[in-house]
Amino acid sequence: MSAVLVRPARREDCGEIQRLIQALATFEKFPHGPKLTIEDLERDGFESSPAKFKCIVAEMPDESKTFCGYAMYFPIYSSWMGKGIRIEDLYVTPEFHGTGLGKRLFSLVAKEAYEGDYCRVEFTALGWNPAAGFYRHLGAENVTDSEERNVWRLYRNGMEKLLLHAK
Amino acid sequence: MSAVLVRPARREDCGEIQRLIQALATFEKFPHGPKLTIEDLERDGFESSPAKFKCIVAEMPDESKTFCGYAMYFPIYSSWMGKGIRIEDLYVTPEFHGTGLGKRLFSLVAKEAYEGDYCRVEFTALGWNPAAGFYRHLGAENVTDSEERNVWRLYRNGMEKLLLHAK
Repeated sequence: MSAVLVRPARREDCGEIQRLIQALATFEKFPHGPKLTIEDLERDGFESSPAKFKCIVAEMPDESKTFCGYAMYFPIYSSWMGKGIRIEDLYVTPEFHGTGLGKRLFSLVAKEAYEGDYCRVEFTALGWNPAAGFYRHLGAENVTDSEERNVWRLYRNGMEKLLLHAK
Repeated sequence: MSAVLVRPARREDCGEIQRLIQALATFEKFPHGPKLTIEDLERDGFESSPAKFKCIVAEMPDESKTFCGYAMYFPIYSSWMGKGIRIEDLYVTPEFHGTGLGKRLFSLVAKEAYEGDYCRVEFTALGWNPAAGFYRHLGAENVTDSEERNVWRLYRNGMEKLLLHAK
């Protein structure tokens, strides 16, 4: 297998990125989760200033230019240690598992974080995700296990109720 | 008790914000966690474009102008639903617990999220934090419980090891 090309995403990649977002969601057993159109991704990632996310993509080395992986990430902030990076998605298609591509994508984000003086790279993963061993191997720590750190979310219906009551 | 003034933070508030960041860390049993100076907070929140965080602060209604609470937050992004807000810190000093101030701070961020068409407000909390009932009451969902969503972090020593091996 000749080398996969790994590079920063461009605006015209949003169709392939959307396809992989859907593949990741299906793998995570939430096939109806993704709601963004290609146009949403183009606007938010490539026409907004600042961009709402960045992406690194992995392109097949053949003429198809099909994507076989991506990492989507953006800056976050810690009130203790300053700027960090959140990896929102990291995905490699099944046929490229075990080729080192996941590590390559993750390492590129880690390199950007390290060289840019970011304090941490953070991401979330489902507990049953078989990649847990892979993340640990990369040096990441599960802080839900070590510090009992829980993720909470308020969705739009929750916001609406809260604002009605707050009036 | 006359009304607490709740307002967006200004550059000159960073000393009081830093004091409350320390108070929150001490409450969380990580008193040595905070490393940022007042100057770091001024630079990152008020001299950077875009600002790396936003803050809402609660000021005592007396001449001391002492702060009794704050919420620090910034934009995030979901590959399924688009832009969101992460609340990094939400803190109210013990003497103001039960006065509705926490709800006021949280609701202001939720209002900004709702009106700005953000898909969610996300935050993390320690499992033993007694505020869990309060968050649930506000309409938030613990997605570590409901979806087994775990938080992972790679710190700078992890980045360094990973990049050494990647060479």
